[in-house]
This record gives sequence, C-alpha cells and structure tokens, in this order.
Amino acid sequence: MSNPDSNINGSTRPKLQGVPAALACVADYERLAAEFVDHPIFEYLQGGSGNEQSLRDNLRVFDECYVQNRLLADVSQGGTHTTLLQHRLRHPILLAPVAYQRLAHPEGELEAARGADALEAGWVTSTLSSCSLEDIAAQHQGMRWFQLYFQPQRAHTLDLVRRAQAAGYSAIVVTLDATVQASSRRAQRAGFAFPKGVSAVNLQGYAAPPQVALTPEQSVILQGAMAEAPTWQDLEWLLDNTDLPVLVKGVQRVADAERLLRLGVQGLVASNHGGRALDGMPAPLRVLPQLRQALGKQVPILLDSGIRSGYDVFKALALGADAVLIGRPFLYGLAVAGALGVAHVLRLLRDELELCMALAGTPTVADIGPDSVFRLD
Amino acid sequence: MSNPDSNINGSTRPKLQGVPAALACVADYERLAAEFVDHPIFEYLQGGSGNEQSLRDNLRVFDECYVQNRLLADVSQGGTHTTLLQHRLRHPILLAPVAYQRLAHPEGELEAARGADALEAGWVTSTLSSCSLEDIAAQHQGMRWFQLYFQPQRAHTLDLVRRAQAAGYSAIVVTLDATVQASSRRAQRAGFAFPKGVSAVNLQGYAAPPQVALTPEQSVILQGAMAEAPTWQDLEWLLDNTDLPVLVKGVQRVADAERLLRLGVQGLVASNHGGRALDGMPAPLRVLPQLRQALGKQVPILLDSGIRSGYDVFKALALGADAVLIGRPFLYGLAVAGALGVAHVLRLLRDELELCMALAGTPTVADIGPDSVFRLD
Amino acid sequence: MSNPDSNINGSTRPKLQGVPAALACVADYERLAAEFVDHPIFEYLQGGSGNEQSLRDNLRVFDECYVQNRLLADVSQGGTHTTLLQHRLRHPILLAPVAYQRLAHPEGELEAARGADALEAGWVTSTLSSCSLEDIAAQHQGMRWFQLYFQPQRAHTLDLVRRAQAAGYSAIVVTLDATVQASSRRAQRAGFAFPKGVSAVNLQGYAAPPQVALTPEQSVILQGAMAEAPTWQDLEWLLDNTDLPVLVKGVQRVADAERLLRLGVQGLVASNHGGRALDGMPAPLRVLPQLRQALGKQVPILLDSGIRSGYDVFKALALGADAVLIGRPFLYGLAVAGALGVAHVLRLLRDELELCMALAGTPTVADIGPDSVFRLD
Amino acid sequence: MSNPDSNINGSTRPKLQGVPAALACVADYERLAAEFVDHPIFEYLQGGSGNEQSLRDNLRVFDECYVQNRLLADVSQGGTHTTLLQHRLRHPILLAPVAYQRLAHPEGELEAARGADALEAGWVTSTLSSCSLEDIAAQHQGMRWFQLYFQPQRAHTLDLVRRAQAAGYSAIVVTLDATVQASSRRAQRAGFAFPKGVSAVNLQGYAAPPQVALTPEQSVILQGAMAEAPTWQDLEWLLDNTDLPVLVKGVQRVADAERLLRLGVQGLVASNHGGRALDGMPAPLRVLPQLRQALGKQVPILLDSGIRSGYDVFKALALGADAVLIGRPFLYGLAVAGALGVAHVLRLLRDELELCMALAGTPTVADIGPDSVFRLD
Repeated sequence: MSNPDSNINGSTRPKLQGVPAALACVADYERLAAEFVDHPIFEYLQGGSGNEQSLRDNLRVFDECYVQNRLLADVSQGGTHTTLLQHRLRHPILLAPVAYQRLAHPEGELEAARGADALEAGWVTSTLSSCSLEDIAAQHQGMRWFQLYFQPQRAHTLDLVRRAQAAGYSAIVVTLDATVQASSRRAQRAGFAFPKGVSAVNLQGYAAPPQVALTPEQSVILQGAMAEAPTWQDLEWLLDNTDLPVLVKGVQRVADAERLLRLGVQGLVASNHGGRALDGMPAPLRVLPQLRQALGKQVPILLDSGIRSGYDVFKALALGADAVLIGRPFLYGLAVAGALGVAHVLRLLRDELELCMALAGTPTVADIGPDSVFRLD
Repeated sequence: MSNPDSNINGSTRPKLQGVPAALACVADYERLAAEFVDHPIFEYLQGGSGNEQSLRDNLRVFDECYVQNRLLADVSQGGTHTTLLQHRLRHPILLAPVAYQRLAHPEGELEAARGADALEAGWVTSTLSSCSLEDIAAQHQGMRWFQLYFQPQRAHTLDLVRRAQAAGYSAIVVTLDATVQASSRRAQRAGFAFPKGVSAVNLQGYAAPPQVALTPEQSVILQGAMAEAPTWQDLEWLLDNTDLPVLVKGVQRVADAERLLRLGVQGLVASNHGGRALDGMPAPLRVLPQLRQALGKQVPILLDSGIRSGYDVFKALALGADAVLIGRPFLYGLAVAGALGVAHVLRLLRDELELCMALAGTPTVADIGPDSVFRLD
Repeated sequence: MSNPDSNINGSTRPKLQGVPAALACVADYERLAAEFVDHPIFEYLQGGSGNEQSLRDNLRVFDECYVQNRLLADVSQGGTHTTLLQHRLRHPILLAPVAYQRLAHPEGELEAARGADALEAGWVTSTLSSCSLEDIAAQHQGMRWFQLYFQPQRAHTLDLVRRAQAAGYSAIVVTLDATVQASSRRAQRAGFAFPKGVSAVNLQGYAAPPQVALTPEQSVILQGAMAEAPTWQDLEWLLDNTDLPVLVKGVQRVADAERLLRLGVQGLVASNHGGRALDGMPAPLRVLPQLRQALGKQVPILLDSGIRSGYDVFKALALGADAVLIGRPFLYGLAVAGALGVAHVLRLLRDELELCMALAGTPTVADIGPDSVFRLD
Repeated sequence: MSNPDSNINGSTRPKLQGVPAALACVADYERLAAEFVDHPIFEYLQGGSGNEQSLRDNLRVFDECYVQNRLLADVSQGGTHTTLLQHRLRHPILLAPVAYQRLAHPEGELEAARGADALEAGWVTSTLSSCSLEDIAAQHQGMRWFQLYFQPQRAHTLDLVRRAQAAGYSAIVVTLDATVQASSRRAQRAGFAFPKGVSAVNLQGYAAPPQVALTPEQSVILQGAMAEAPTWQDLEWLLDNTDLPVLVKGVQRVADAERLLRLGVQGLVASNHGGRALDGMPAPLRVLPQLRQALGKQVPILLDSGIRSGYDVFKALALGADAVLIGRPFLYGLAVAGALGVAHVLRLLRDELELCMALAGTPTVADIGPDSVFRLD
C-alpha cells in the first residue's frame, strides 16, 4: 500500500516522533489531527448534517449530566470488564463503524483495527470501509461485528452478510438512521471530494441498480435516494436469512425499539449517527434512560455519538448503556499516529473510565447505575 | 427597468457567475448577500425592532426543538405536496409579503416572483411592493395571495382588494401586527434611507389622508400613526366586502384567533413579523401548539419568522403549521442572484425538508406531527 | 457655575452639535457617554457592587420576559398618562434619585431636572445630590419627590424632610437597601475618586457624628458604618414626624412590604439599587409579581433597576408596577448633551412605550396587565 | 530557608511594593498571581481534573443563587463570629488543606499560616504539606486541624495522627474523595513537574509500600493506585485509634453522610476537591441543602470548592454550611504577597461577608438561613 508518510492525497504528512506527553485527552488529539489531514478531509470528518444542532447537543448533554461519588468502596477487585452478546470484553468501549477510514490514514481500517486489537477493544467494520472486510478481519483478534447497509439488491445484502460471517464477524449491526447521506455544509464549503483510491471496496463486485428516471413531480430524495431504503419487510427478511445476531443502530424511539425486539433483533445502538444523519435528533443520552426503562435490563443497548472521554463513558453506562462506540476520537488518533494513536486514544479513555470508577466507588461496570449520576431537581 | 448589473443606488453590483458550490444553505446566502447590497440596505433587511429580542428568539426557538426519527418507514410514495385553501401545492414553503423588494434587486418583486414560480412556491404580494401588484401577478403562475394593509380611506382599501382579485390573487392576507412601523436601530445607525425610485407603487393613486394637528397632550403614535389603524369593525367591513378568502397575519393569542374565525376569517399566520413589529413577542413557534390545539385540525395555520432551513420547516409542520412563509432567506437569494438565487434558496429548503422527511420516516406532510418532535422532560 | 464645555475635572468636553440621528436608543447614549466623561467616572457610573451578579440580572430578566399582542384594539383614545399619589403624570417614567449628578455634567441635577421638566417626567432628588435640593426644585415644575437617607442625628434627618417640604417636594422616598455603600471593583480599579467640588451639598450644615473607636473584635462595617443605620423604630419616628407621604425604596420581600404598609408607608419601590447595593439580590422584576399579588391593586409600587427601553417599561407595568424609575439611562443623556440629552432619552423611552402599547393593543397604562406578557410553560 | 525574592525555581520573583489599591477582590489576585509563579505551576494550581466540568460548576452555581435582603434590621450587635467543634472563631472562613504550598511561595505553608493567623482564620494542614506539620503549627495560634490521607501502612497513618495531636492540631479531617490523583490536562500540557525541593516532607520517614507487579488483566488504577485506598474498615479503625474529633472531607451523598455520622464522625466537608478529584461531581452547593436537611442542625457541615468572594460565603452559610474553606483564593494571595497577601485576601472576604450581612439584615451567622436566599420558581 501507499507510503505511510504520505497522506491520501500524496502530500507529505507531518511525522510524529512517539506520542507527545502533551496528548492528554481526546481534545488534544483533535487539535493535532487538524494538522495531519488535509483541510477538506478534516472538515468532512468534523462536520455534522444540517445546522449541526445534533452535533452540538451530543457534546452538551454530557456537560449537563453530573456524577455522584460513593465513599470508601473497596474497588480492589474491580475492573472494566463486561460481557456483550456472550463475549467477555476487557472494557465497554468499541470502535464505531466509521466509513472510509483511509481518509484519515493511508492504511485506513487495517491500521485502526490493529490499534483496537492492541487495546482489546471491540471492532465494527463498516459496509463502506475503504479496506475489504476480509483484510480488516485479519488485523483484529477480538470481538468484531459487521455494520450493514441494505443494498439495492437483496442478493448483494446477503452476500455481504455471508462474507462477514465467513470472515469471523460475530454479529451484524444494521444501520437504519442514515438511509440518505449528504455532505455536511462544512465539507461542501471546504470543497471536500473523495480522494482517488478511497472507495467502498466491499461493494466493488456489485452492479449498481438501474437508474430510474424521475418525473418532475418526483423527489430526488424520496423517490430517488430513498427508493432502495429498507423497510420492516426487509429487516424481517434479513432476520430470516442469517443466524448471526442482529443489532440495529440509530434507534431513539421506544416504540421502534420494542417492535425491533419483537422481531428478533438482539440489541440496539442508541445513536444520532454522530450528528451526521437527521439533524435535530437529540443526543442519544437524552433518550437512553427511557429506552432502558422500557426494555428492561437484559437487552443489550449501546450508545454512540458524543463520547469524548472516559467520563462520558461512565455517564452513558450509568444512564443505561452496556457499552459505547467511539467514532471521531479514534479517527483523530488514527490520523495522528496510526495504530499507535488509536491504541493511545483507547488507553486514555479506559484510564479515564477506571479513574472515574475508582473515585465514584463503583468497582465494576455492573455497579455503575442511575445512582451514580446526580440530577438537578 | 434599470440595468440589472447596477444596484438600486446605481453603483456596480458584483456579478455572480453561476451559483457557487459553496452556497449550501441559507446562511451561506446571508453572508454573501452582505456583499451584494449597500450596507445601509443590508442593515435595513437584517434589523429587527427595538432590542431585537424577538429577532433572536425566532432563531433560538428552532434550536431548542428536537426531532425524532421513525425507523424503516416506506417513504417511496411520499412527497412534500400539500393543500392550502383548495390549492394543491408542490411544497409548503411560501414567499412572505416582504415590502420594497427592489431594495435587494433592481427588478425587485418581479424577479423574486419568477424565482418562486420556477420552484412552484406560493407567493404573497405586499401592499408595499415596489413593483405593481398587476406586474408581479404576470410573473407567477401558481397560487398567489395579496397582503393587505388597511388604508386610511376604505375606498382605497377596497380598491386594492378589487385590483388584487382582478389580477388573479386568490386570497387576501391582512397584516394586523404592524400598524406602526419604525426603522430598526441598526438601520437608523447605518443611515438607511429609501433610495430614489423605491416606493409603494400600488398606493400611488391614493391621496394621502388629511394631516391632523396633534395637541401637545397627544401622542404622535397613539393619536398620530395609529389614528387610521384598523379595528374589529374595519375587519368585519372587509369581510363583508370581498368574496376572496381572508387570512390574518400576526396572530399569537388564542382568544384573538377564535374571534377572527368566528367572524369568517379562513386562515391565520402565526408570526411576529420577522421580529420587525412588536419587539418582545415570542417566536411564533412557541405559541403554535396552543393555537393548533385550540383551533382544531381544519383551520389553515401558517407560520413565518425565523425559518432558515428545511429542518425549521419540518419543526413548524410538526408543531401544527400547514405551511410556512420565508422572508429574509429569499431576499438573500434575490440580492445575490435574482430569480435564480430565489429559486436556489427554495430548492435548498425543499431538499432539506425532503431529507428531513426521509430520515424522520414521515413520507408526507400529513405524517409530520407532534410525534415527530422530541421534548425534553 | 463652571463652564459647561469643561467637564468636572476641568478637561475639555467633546461638544455635541445637536442630537445625532444615530442616537436611536439608550444603548447608543451609553456608548457615547463613555467619551463624554473621564474613564474613572464612567466606571463609577457603570459599576455594580461585588460580582455584579445583580447588575447582570437586571438586564437579563427583561430578555426573559415576552410580550403578547392583542389585535385590532382601538387605541386612538389612549395615552401613557397615569396617576401616582394623586398626581396626574404624562407618563410613568420617573428619574431616580441618582447621587452626585455633577459627575456626569457640570450643572448636574439642575440640568437633569430641566430635562425631566421638559418631558414632564416625575423627579426625585437624592439626599446626596451635588446641587442643593432647593436649587433643583426651582428647575422642575412637575411632581417631584425627595429621596431620604437617614442621618446620624434625627434632627438632621428631620431638617432635610422639612427643607424638602418647604421646597415643594410632595413625597419622601426613604432608601433602605443601601445603608453601607462601597465603591464597585471597577471604580476601584479605575482609580475613581470624587472630583473636587462634587459633594453632598445638602448635608453641608450638619456636623458629622462623633467618631467612635472600634475594638479589634468589632467590625468597621457592622459596628462602624452600620452604627447609624435606621431601624424600624427610626422609620416609625419618621412617619410620626412628617405629613408628607412616605415611600420606601429597596423592598423585595413580601413580609417587609406588608409590615411597611401597616406602619403607614404609602408606596414601595421594588429595586436592587441598580445592582449597586447588596450584590446577589435578584432583579426586582423577578419579585414584582409576588409583591403585587400580596399587596393588592391599590398600593403604589414602582420599579427601578435595569430599565433601558420603553419595552422594559411596558414589561414592568405588565407585571405589576405603577411606574418605573430610570437611573443610568438619563445619566448617559446628561453626560452627552445635558438637559437636551436627558429630555431626548426620556422621549425615546416614552416613544418606545407608546409604540409598544400601540402594537400590543393596550391603549392605556391601565390596560397593560399580566395578560400582556407571555410566559413559557 | 531560600531567598523569598526568588521563586521555587530560583528565578527572580517580581516584587510587590505594598498591596496595590487595585487589588479589590480575589479575581484581582488571581490575575496578578499568574505573573508571580511560573506558568506550569500556575496551570497546576488553576487546573481541574478531566473536562473541568466540576471546576466550572463550582463557580457557576453561586451565580445561580440569589440573595434576599431584610429591611431595617438592627445589626449593630452583629458579627461574623461563629463556633465550630467548640472553638469560637472570628469568622467562618478557614484555609483549606492545599498540598505543596511552596509551589506558590518559597516559605509555603509557613507563610500562609502566618497570614491566616493574622486574620484569625482557622487553618488545616495537609498531609502533603511542603513544610512539616510541626513547623507549620508554630506559625498559627488559632484553631488548626490536620488533614489526613490514609497511608499504605496503618502505622504510618497513626504516626501522622499522633504527630498532629502532639503539635496541637485539634481535629483530623480525613479526605476521602481523592484516593487517586492525576495531573490536570492543563498542567500536563504546560509541562508541569514538581520543582526540586518541593515534596511531602511529612512522609519522608515512611518507607514506600512494596511495589506489586500487576498482571496485564489488572488496572494500574483499580489494582494499582487504589490498592491502598481506605475502606470503611480503615475509617472505623481510625476512629477507634484517636480521641481527636474526626471530620470527613469529600462527602456529597446523604447515605454516605449518615453512615459516617453513625460511626462517630463529627463533621463533614461538602466538597468536590475544588474540581480536582472526580470530574463531573456537582458543585457542593447543589447538594448542601439536602445534606443539611437530612442531617439536622447540629452536625457541623463545612463547604469548599468555588468560594471566591464573601458573597459566596454568605450563600454557603444560607444554604446550610457552618463554615467554608478556601483554597485557590489564599494561594493567589500567597503567590503575590506571602503572608500579607493571604491576610489581605482573608480580609477582603470577611469584609464582603460583613457587607453582605449588613445589607441582608442578618446581623449574625446564625441569622443567615434558607430565608436569606431567593429561589426562582
């Protein structure tokens, strides 16, 4: 593959000599990442859809949530270990299925998966990964899932699922909140375009669906882009055609969640797609407590969107999540220092989570609960 | 008419070579518009009355309103079409009756109406239009309404209504929230004055009312400017003297709305006049739910003031509006690129609305309801 | 008196050639005033006590209060006239008893009173005026009151009251919320000191009380400055020794207000002393509704602190005030243009109030009520 | 000891010629302190843990709390005196047990204790003081307590307690909210490291605990740093082995507080460690009212974290605190002007408290209660 000292556009990357001590948190990596990728790409990574209301809310919501400590707890037997769909995990921080990771680093998902593997973090490969799902699988020993976007042809969808299973992915995460995707205004203004060589390689073999001409009365979105969007029937079909556990990503509404579970979905990801899908959706932390309350303790619920520190992880767990997924944070690490950067970001988050658990007096993930957060009257 | 490459003051306008890709939203047009009109005029367009509390509230309120998605809905038969006073509309975005549009472009309302027509947007001509209501009508094939300010003499008021009807306007929108208008402080500071040649041409034939001398105890506002302000009797008279449907613009109070409907008014526009009338009035989105709840589902209620994106349109529809009117957004387009700019702004808004509908799982305007927004506890 | 073209420090004042059109509101005068007085004096005028929490709250509270309009009301017989303690007033805007007005203009209170007189505004002379109460009285024909600080010796207090009565002041406003006054931090930092020639001339004939030495255990505030602070007994004594109506300024607590009224006090001023007394007191607009509700409709309640526009006046009236007092706003006018500036500021406020009344559909002061404001749920 | 004109790093300190008049409040000292200590040290003093959510909340909470005055109260017999654990105190402002005060001044705790002594302020020596607890005791005549961190070996813990008792400390304050401490991100970024010569001198004689090798599955925090963290058994052991009164610092949860009191703890400090321990804990002022309500009037409750003015002290007392501790404020004074600066900061706070009491009409500390603060509905 390309020279790791060049970025995806061929210009010379700044070189990082080891991890500087000043990289003390994700925000530090974010600042530095801006120097390691071309500006339009950085804007693409950072941007949110529409007015970026959801993007802002994802960060603000954690600042509105307070933690409460418990004194003198014995945490010496504690740890961040947890179990998810029968997998024992070292910690509840997974890497979200971010598309096109070669935008951030020449080795893209391969490098990111190596970093995740080093820190024993669960991994989710995107349908839109810029390295093949099989190559990525070879870089990661732990729990790895495959994120699925429904394809225009069911045969292609099923082919993806079977390839994933063959490559050792142990669950399918169907993303349902981003059936149409538009570039953020930031990315548009910065003139973002996909660099040559960054593409959805998993889909290369699948012929594009026939273009249908729209009448003037029809919408390029509703009749165009959404023509192939999945429906409840498609999801049921999928559940009938795989024995892998299926989770659904992008759930915020209790009624949707309940219907999904009745159909056989085995877990949910509360998410607003990192503020990149339907702008205006609240931060998932706002809906998490009601999801957990409605669905009971047994259903795996993950949360992504807005996690920037181990403190955020703690709050998500306290309000009902079993685990979280991070997106931009590991991309910053990937952009700055490849697998090492990804691993370091994960380590910072895990250390912050452990510090939080130690000081909050909650030795294990199971001890972190609604009682661990403080609510203003 | 004047050279379209000169602005209303005769200085040379910057030329726009096509629509730049960086124009991705209304805010982009707003930034650019500042370069296309003289500063005092821009300040006049932008300013709000008094302390601009209402102006700020109009924007903030949309940021406080969250959207909630519905998964896996089939939107392939959907669209933005809607019906208003028996008119089938392509989408629920109308152009508000902004006065004196030649401030923004030499061809003023003519050019704006062409842009509206191209995007099949409903149009409302202002009593204070700077092109004649008849000329404007000739530029727009779709649903067009006439906005009426009561004139000092009933004969003139009636003449306006009859001219509008003759010119094919299909409804009268009586504005009742701006019986006195004052320049904004911004406009005053910038030294705004109406350029030569921009005037209320519809009123040219009507003699001014006789000036009445005020005693020192009297108020130039209450006894002066308001002397000719309409009362309930005037509105009843109007309703008795036209067979066009009459809507009232500027309604926020339920009791007012109920009384208007009892008298025969056929629709309402919840509005604070874009923050240009009574400063301190809340954003109409704040009062919309209670208006809708009190008046039931059948009464047409439109909303203006603060719409800057298709997301805002979606939220207004969700909280009870049948359609919205935009003011400043199309003026920005008009200032930057004439009819093309107006059409592009409308297209951006419609596309954002369609995107929002697709991702929210609400295929038609009728599907967008209170359930589509998320409320913090 | 001194040359009106020199400021109190003798340096040359900038000259204002008429009132510029750009002076469209109080905020414009505020900006300009900074150029017309020396910086330390401006800081003294602007500053609030302590952390300036109250100073900020005074402004913020008006921005949190919304107005609601009433359509089609006939306001042609309306006006801002009101009645206060049997005085018919042209409008409900009084000038607060600001001390040492020669800081802002060489002619100080004399000039300010002339401006108030020109706009028929009620006037209140401060005990700490920098011109004599008798000289001031000669400049103002309308309703004028005298603001009283209790003096260390009752004889002096009574002498002030009798002089005020002899000079035609028709009520006494006892200020009770500022028994100790300290320079604001801003003023301290700017090195503010009273210029030579600016002093409390009303008190010149009264001998200072004997200095009492404090023990180390005692406090320069509680045993020092507060040694002569009035108590309930002093207030009762005052009420027994004057037949002028007595109002009390600085009231926020309902229990205090009720006790004052039982003793014979005839009116109240809800105030936090413009943020210059006890920092941390809420804006009086926050307590006004409960004061009005507890005391009923008949008791005159005025409000000061934070009024910067006619919109603010309207809101204060709506929430229960019979009238308002302005402080800094008229000082800005006084600093910029003497009596003319004071008159212009008053005119701007009255015009804004009339505009607000016209658009809100409340023709008279009596029509402005709780129904005129809109409350968020 | 070292030349007081050199800072701890040997570079020349700016010299302060007396206390400038412009030092009117703690914020003034804060600004100046930045010039008197090296930047990395200043960042260490200023920083909070994690995202600094708690650090921000500590300041914001006081701005959200309003004060209410009581008119005409006789405060001439009043004062700030109070009683704490049988000690009569001149005022309720104590110096918190800040570690390593030689970072701020070459004479460190010795100089700070002199300043506290001059203003008769209670003093608490930190286990991690950079001067010996015995030397510090010699500088302070008033009430002084010893802050205890449990040591890895109980013998060492007990030795500290006995040394403290021998040196005349009259109570033990056990800190329980900071069992793990990490440098703030600010300090890390600024490259903070402990200067040579600044160390925890009280612990010099105690051998470090044997290093235990961790397995890869174990956590450097939960099994490493927390291995020696105290538990309820340790606290019970301490209470059994000293006859000094024991207070616990870092309490926020009512259930913890109740359990502590049942075991014999004699007082509590509501604290989030100045935002330096578990980030995300609310400002203690938020939990104080419920602690006081649950525990009744008799239990001594102190508050630290966020006190920056006498107004803040007043609010803490009103909401249930018997006294407060200040940290950063006295460090600013210490950095700027040694003992004189510490004394001046204390004087500013006490004067502000007295001013607040005078104007609020609460002559004594006992008069300050829930009725002294105003709550928004």
